[in-house]
Parts: sequence; C-alpha cells; structure tokens
Amino acid sequence: MDSVSLSEVTAIRRTHLGFMHSFRQQFSGVPISPKFCSSKVDGPKATLSSNTKSQSVYGGNIAATADSGYKINGVNLKSRTLISSVKERLLLDAYDDEYGGVIVDHGKLPSNPFAFASMLRASLSDWRRKGKKGVWLKLPVEQSELVPIAIKEGFEYHHAEKRYVMLTYWIPEEEPSMLPANASHQVGVGGFVLNQHKEVLVVQEKYCAPSITGLWKLPTGFINESEEIFSGAVREVKEETGVDTEFSEVIAFRHAHNVAFEKSDLFFICMLRPLSDKIIIDGLEIKAAKWMPLVEFVEQPMIRGDKMFKRVIEICEARLSHRYCGLSPHRLVSTFDGKPSSLYYNVVDDDHDPSHSNCNTDYL
Amino acid sequence: MDSVSLSEVTAIRRTHLGFMHSFRQQFSGVPISPKFCSSKVDGPKATLSSNTKSQSVYGGNIAATADSGYKINGVNLKSRTLISSVKERLLLDAYDDEYGGVIVDHGKLPSNPFAFASMLRASLSDWRRKGKKGVWLKLPVEQSELVPIAIKEGFEYHHAEKRYVMLTYWIPEEEPSMLPANASHQVGVGGFVLNQHKEVLVVQEKYCAPSITGLWKLPTGFINESEEIFSGAVREVKEETGVDTEFSEVIAFRHAHNVAFEKSDLFFICMLRPLSDKIIIDGLEIKAAKWMPLVEFVEQPMIRGDKMFKRVIEICEARLSHRYCGLSPHRLVSTFDGKPSSLYYNVVDDDHDPSHSNCNTDYL
Repeated sequence: MDSVSLSEVTAIRRTHLGFMHSFRQQFSGVPISPKFCSSKVDGPKATLSSNTKSQSVYGGNIAATADSGYKINGVNLKSRTLISSVKERLLLDAYDDEYGGVIVDHGKLPSNPFAFASMLRASLSDWRRKGKKGVWLKLPVEQSELVPIAIKEGFEYHHAEKRYVMLTYWIPEEEPSMLPANASHQVGVGGFVLNQHKEVLVVQEKYCAPSITGLWKLPTGFINESEEIFSGAVREVKEETGVDTEFSEVIAFRHAHNVAFEKSDLFFICMLRPLSDKIIIDGLEIKAAKWMPLVEFVEQPMIRGDKMFKRVIEICEARLSHRYCGLSPHRLVSTFDGKPSSLYYNVVDDDHDPSHSNCNTDYL
Repeated sequence: MDSVSLSEVTAIRRTHLGFMHSFRQQFSGVPISPKFCSSKVDGPKATLSSNTKSQSVYGGNIAATADSGYKINGVNLKSRTLISSVKERLLLDAYDDEYGGVIVDHGKLPSNPFAFASMLRASLSDWRRKGKKGVWLKLPVEQSELVPIAIKEGFEYHHAEKRYVMLTYWIPEEEPSMLPANASHQVGVGGFVLNQHKEVLVVQEKYCAPSITGLWKLPTGFINESEEIFSGAVREVKEETGVDTEFSEVIAFRHAHNVAFEKSDLFFICMLRPLSDKIIIDGLEIKAAKWMPLVEFVEQPMIRGDKMFKRVIEICEARLSHRYCGLSPHRLVSTFDGKPSSLYYNVVDDDHDPSHSNCNTDYL
C-alpha cells in the first residue's frame, strides 16, 4: 500500500481559487506532513513501527507490545503515557486539512475489518470531541471490504475512480456540509473543418439514436483525461476520419445539464484547419465520412429544423467571413501553480491595428 | 428500492454527440424497456413474482417454488422449461444497452450477499457466453455490502455519488475497454465587477495558501450542480460580497489539469455589471471585501508578477475599451433534446453593422 501523497489526497478547497491552486500542486508527490497544513495537529501522533499490526493492539496485550516496539514520535513509551498511547493506537492515522477537517491516511488502514470498525468509531468520537468538521476517507480497491463498514458508520460516497472510492463524513450536526463536490462536468469537442472547396468534413456514426439515423454531423468526442481541448479536437477528427488538422479556435461552447450520470456537459465547437485530404474512417464507431459541400450540410432537414444546430453553423459561417472572434488557447504559467495551463481568449489588439486581432485572420 | 429509471442508469454513449443527447433525455424517468434499445434482448426474461425471494431459488426447492409462483413473462412454468427458468432465476435482472453491454437492474438486486455472489458469477458467465461487452452495476448505499463482492469478481469502480457507487466490468479480454469515463472536470467562475468609479470588486479569503495571504482577488467559486455559468457567477459574487450584479459575458476561460482528485478544471472569467454598491461579506469564507481602484488592483505584486493574472486583467481592460469580444449566453432548444441549454458565442453582426455586435456594446 503506497503512502499517501498529496496529489492523491489533497488539501480540499471549498472555494475555487481561480488561478491559485498553489497549495496542492506545490506538494504534489510529497508525503503530507502536518507542518504544511495551516491547522495544528492536536497532540502527539503515534507512529506505529512497521512490524506492529493494529490487531495486536486491538487484541489487548498492551504491556507486552508496548515494551517490544511502540514509540511516540521516536520516544519509547513509559507507563505514564501508556494510556494515552493506547488511545492513539486505537485511532486511525489521519492528517488535518486547511478547513478543520481530517484526511485519513489510506496507506495505513488496518487490513482487519473488525479493527477498522472499532478504530473508525473511536476516531469519529475523537474528531467530534476535537471539533473537527469534514472527514475524507479514501478506500483503495484492495480494501473494498471496509466500504460497508464505513457506510454503516454514516459515511457517504463522494466519488470513485477505477482503483479507489472516496467517502466523506460531515461531523457538525448543526452546520450544513461545506464539503466540496467532485467533478461535475464531462467535456466534449466538435471539429468544424472546412477545405478550400468550401466542403465541410462530416461523419455518420454507427451507434446512434433512431431519430438521427442518417444524419451527417461534425466529428465529435470526449476529451481524454488531462487532455487539452485543442489537442482533443484534433485527435477526435483524426481518429474518426483520418484527416490531419490544425487547431484554430473555440468559436462557441454549449452548456447542458443532466446529460450523463446526472452530470453536466460542456461542448466546445472548434474550428480546425485541414492539413490533409484523405479520409480513412474508424470502423469501430464511424459508418462513413466525407467532404460535403457546406450548403448541402446546412440543408439537411435535421439541421435546418434545429435552432441549436442552425445557430452554430451561422457562427461558423460568420467566422469564415471574418465577422466573428473566437477564443484561442495560450499556454501560460501562473507563479502560484508553477504549472502551465491554457487560457483561451481573443487576441487583444493593443494598438487598434485590426491585423493584430484574430477576428480578422484568415481561416484558410 | 426504486425501479431503474433511464435518468439514473442511462444508455451509455461512448461518443459525444454534440447537441444530440436525444436518446437519453427522451426516456428520462421512464423505466427502461428492452424495446427501446437497439440490441435485441436474448430470449425470454424471467419475471419473478414479487413475493418470491432469490434465496429460495438458490436454496434448491425448485419444484415446489416453481409450482407455487414462478412465471416466464406471465406464463406458468411447465416441467420442460423448468431448467431454463431456473437458470434465468439464478441470473441478475439486467437490460441490454446500445453497445452490446448490459445494465444490471439495481432495483432488483438480491439482499442476500451470498445469493448476489452466486448470481453475479453466473450472470458474468452467461453474458460472456452471449458475447456481451460492458457491464454496469449500480449499488445503492443501502446495499454497500455487495461492493466487496463485486470487486472480488473483477468489477472496477466507475464513479460514485452520495447515495450509490457505480461499478463496471469489461468482458472481452482481447479488446480494450470502450466504456466511457465519468465527469472529468470541475467548473469554476470568477466575476470581474467594475463600477462607474473604475473600481473593481475584490475579496480576501479566510482560508488560503500561505503564499497568497493578503492578496485581494476577484470573487470566485464553483458552480453548483446543474447551475448555469451565468447564474453561478452572479450568485458567487452576491454570496461573497452582497453585491448584486448582472451577467455580461464570458471573456476568457482557463483549462488546467490534475487540480483536485486528479481531475481537470475549467475556470470561466466573467464580466458582470454591478447593480448595487453595498458590501456585506460572507463571514464563513471571506475575511474582507471592498471596491478597489483598478490601477491599485493590478499593481499588487502578486498580480503584477504573475503572467496568467496579468493577461486576464489586460483582457478585462481591453473589453472595457471595446477592443474585445466575449461570449454571451443564449438559451436555445435543440429538437433532439427537447430541452433548453446555453450556447455561448459572440453576437454575429449579420449586416456588418458594428452596433449589432457585442464587441462594441458598452460595459457600463
């Protein structure tokens, strides 16, 4: 079981900081130390020597095990501190976060479900007594048997990824939960690719709802994990049609809700410049692809009869006529982050010279 | 236990349809019927009468229970069909999706974990034999004891919400998994609010990383579940400062990765027009708020020294001077959806009349 690293169990922010994610990223990959949290850790934290199992503590042979291997912060136990050290060992290892909450160290969970149940209950009492607020409990897939135990204690699911599930517990009964939600949006991209013959690159999908069978549509798809919008759009067009393109700009985006798994959806319509012509379709998902005259594309009944579609095509056409400004990606580094990210905006024409604005750059 | 409804366990799309989410939304709230899926359901599906428990079948008194209450699609069993009906009853109730996969009916899960284990194993064999691909298993929080059982059978976590965890299983060993990922992005908004005295509305947060202590920043926050960007920005400013505003446009957005829970982040910088002046701060999260002269705001060392920040402020200033076009939200309904959603774009100046373009509209 790997030790906790801050990139996995991060100090949780309730408020979106805009460009300031510094606290998290600074410590990415570094094991959390209580020093880095703004809240003080309460009292000494027991450090169990690695060959000691929680179960032997739980079993009750305290004197023997204490003499043979227990320490508090590197100091051998004396009888006077025995009771408090026992209390400490019956608790789960956890760290304070910035909001008066705690993050359980998922690298030091007991493997025995009974020990876990007892330690969890004791820890919750201890945290409650200390006025702690939110509890974050990450359970790796290898310890899924602990999930029903945590649920029975009152934990709720927060989110899950392939190899773990995150559960939370909000302790203060008189306060509404301040725990932040997880990712709420899926992100898709669509590529509007026009060649010099005023033909737009379109596809027919293999799997589609009956109502849109036969429709020629723009290549679309989800962006991958940690993928850029500008890369994803180019990749999707390439995968579906075999055509190479160069990203130009985001010309519009659509925001919809309750789309999949009750989540929301952001769909970015991107203009891409074609760099090749030959079409090779992805036979897994695409039935057919072709270059279709733009006028024919917009005349499809399903497009013509749909307000959303029509508006998007109007925007694309406006961009072609230089009557429109999209948003272009710029890679910038924030000193708070230390990491690059993409800022999408129009080019600012500082000197009022129209040729410096991307509103006027040629599409092709 | 509620029956499965399509808004909860939806036909899962691998490809982003752009504006076409019709198949899902059409059937929202309606129990799934195999009729609506493009794949055929294989053979008759056993319908257990409601007073019959899976455990009794599992226990083995088949002749007796069959005579006393089992039917296949409303038809009493005869001895010839007994074996196949028994097989059916040892399987989990599930529906086909559009991609050759199955969705387990979470409303009909056995409560007995042993029965579940056996039925799950038998079902996996059955699905494998029938060439099924992806399996979706939604386990409500009330049945969390089934989680470790599913994990042991080889299921993986897909995502979780407060009241359930979704697990998946990809059956074909020779094919890469085609199951779509879950929501990948959190979405935040920041409000740039300038009054007629060229003062910008700024806040100091109570909880922040040490490196930004003392910084005056724009009000920012996450949008809520199913909330619009244009609503969220106005709400956040109101909550943090007490100031009423009117949404103008999205002037830029930032895309960053590995921000929280290894997810990505989209942050929309919005221009808002102030409708009031009085500041009342949210004492829970905000330390202080005020109207600060714009020149003083940009002169803060932390802003001046940060490329990202500087660029955003330049963009805001450009917009004030009419040298910039942001994206405004337009509510449109797609006939495929039947639902409204928001399309953000520049106003297209159809007749080349600059006054019709939002690039030139006054901010104040």
